Amino acid sequence: MRKVGIGLDIGGTNSVAAAVSEDGKIFKKEIRRTPSKKEPRIIIKSIVDLLRFIKEWSLNKRFEIVGIGLGLPGLIDFTTGVVEILPNFPKMKGFPIIDELKKYFSYKLRYENDASAALLGEYRFGAGKGVDDLICFTLGTGIGGAVLIDGKLLRGPEGFAGELGHITLDPDGPLCGCGNRGCLEASASASAIVRRAKEIISEGKIKTSLSNYLERGEELNASIVAQEANKGDLLAQKVYEEAGKWLGIAIGSLANIFNVHLFLVGGGIANAGDILFNPMKDEAFKRALPGIRDKIEIKKFKLGEDAGIIGASSLVFFND
Amino acid sequence: MRKVGIGLDIGGTNSVAAAVSEDGKIFKKEIRRTPSKKEPRIIIKSIVDLLRFIKEWSLNKRFEIVGIGLGLPGLIDFTTGVVEILPNFPKMKGFPIIDELKKYFSYKLRYENDASAALLGEYRFGAGKGVDDLICFTLGTGIGGAVLIDGKLLRGPEGFAGELGHITLDPDGPLCGCGNRGCLEASASASAIVRRAKEIISEGKIKTSLSNYLERGEELNASIVAQEANKGDLLAQKVYEEAGKWLGIAIGSLANIFNVHLFLVGGGIANAGDILFNPMKDEAFKRALPGIRDKIEIKKFKLGEDAGIIGASSLVFFND
Repeated sequence: MRKVGIGLDIGGTNSVAAAVSEDGKIFKKEIRRTPSKKEPRIIIKSIVDLLRFIKEWSLNKRFEIVGIGLGLPGLIDFTTGVVEILPNFPKMKGFPIIDELKKYFSYKLRYENDASAALLGEYRFGAGKGVDDLICFTLGTGIGGAVLIDGKLLRGPEGFAGELGHITLDPDGPLCGCGNRGCLEASASASAIVRRAKEIISEGKIKTSLSNYLERGEELNASIVAQEANKGDLLAQKVYEEAGKWLGIAIGSLANIFNVHLFLVGGGIANAGDILFNPMKDEAFKRALPGIRDKIEIKKFKLGEDAGIIGASSLVFFND
Repeated sequence: MRKVGIGLDIGGTNSVAAAVSEDGKIFKKEIRRTPSKKEPRIIIKSIVDLLRFIKEWSLNKRFEIVGIGLGLPGLIDFTTGVVEILPNFPKMKGFPIIDELKKYFSYKLRYENDASAALLGEYRFGAGKGVDDLICFTLGTGIGGAVLIDGKLLRGPEGFAGELGHITLDPDGPLCGCGNRGCLEASASASAIVRRAKEIISEGKIKTSLSNYLERGEELNASIVAQEANKGDLLAQKVYEEAGKWLGIAIGSLANIFNVHLFLVGGGIANAGDILFNPMKDEAFKRALPGIRDKIEIKKFKLGEDAGIIGASSLVFFND
């Protein structure tokens, strides 16, 4: 019988579940809205429904389900399986999410932070294949991070390690969702890019095609800014250049801390291309020490948006 | 026969060798000037002389010498034993220091970066005893760093990991010895403290007892600034408060990256006491994420200046 792992990537807006083979191929994928602001009971119901859908599909296709692997968008205490922080799920704090899910499924259940799941996807089947020391960033509304050392995820005593979005890069910088100032997330996430574009537009010094969107009453998003930057819009380019520089500063520091060579960047913003990656590479090279800097490689995720779901499902096939 | 390890802590100004027992007791210690600016041949001769002195002493006292453990102040490629960077030893780049020393001694020879050696001293016999995840800073002319994860030193592929002095904290901040701006080392090392004191004195806005030193033609150093701060000098207090804040920012980021609870701070500056540690603790708590911040503990080295030499000697008694 062919085997599948069920992967689930829970997001603040949408959640994705998939049946994935042992070698990282997606057979079936389902995306649904997450009722993230609701009570835990309602959130759990929607997760269970989504998992049951993929479970039924897999059983109908006569797959053997090896287990369920979860990617969770925040801090879950690995010693208890209890939610410490899920930033977009205000009512989940203190909720024993793992114990609760075990009531519904008898399969093996494994979980990781969503950025760690994405790292494992890229490490096992993507741009990091065979590289035992690497660092991932997932650039979305927030910034997730994960670190692989000698083939093992860096977890820390409670499993909270890898919060690379909350490295301070500028102590008096812009306010971050975490309450601090100048975190990487506050300068290079999708929300930061939109905020920064609006700031520079309101200064009125650079002519920009982005004004047209605002005049038409359309909401800006990071993809629109990337699109206009790649068409030559100077303001949009400046915004991505700044974000790339901030990421490069973080990468330079992390290279000095970990002596890691390979940095993988994923999430929607990574699609912006050279306008983001060139300043990132330049700045990382500048900030890392001689002896360390020459070995730095910065690449885009190979599995794209599927890295998280493929990595989550792979949790059930691997022992670490 | 009683056993000793010979530890050697090579510094840019002085080098220290000692005969140390398996349980971290120093039996004999010798300190000599390091001819750090000279040719490798002369540096090696002085190291060999120092090691021979402790070797002869140990043999005379009928100790069994188990091996020699070195703490090296810079980056040595662990795959080759060749010097990549020893910042205070300009002529040593590319020198095969380990192979050279093996010509003189047939004992087991082990080596680590000096900050890693200090970490191992504190972990095995000092303030970090029994704590398998911890981070050390050694505050001197520069800032050294080392990270212990699950009882193992973080080394990275070439052994260059742990360069915590070169985390960027302020991208446009003061120039660092490494050529970059705003590294931790440029804001919280002994040299940074003296530089900052002179800067604020020259602004002339705060009355300070430190001016007396300069008027008498005496050189300021970080200990004098600490001493005056502890006597109530406002300018000196401000300087230490700033240095403590920068260290706290770095610790906050590192707590988010590693989920490590225990941070140990050593080196001369750590003797300044609360004027350094209080702002450090406040800022670290502020910068670390909820869930992570409550677990942070920041302590001073217990072995003081001997942490490095005790840790270096311990390399020969432990297998990792």
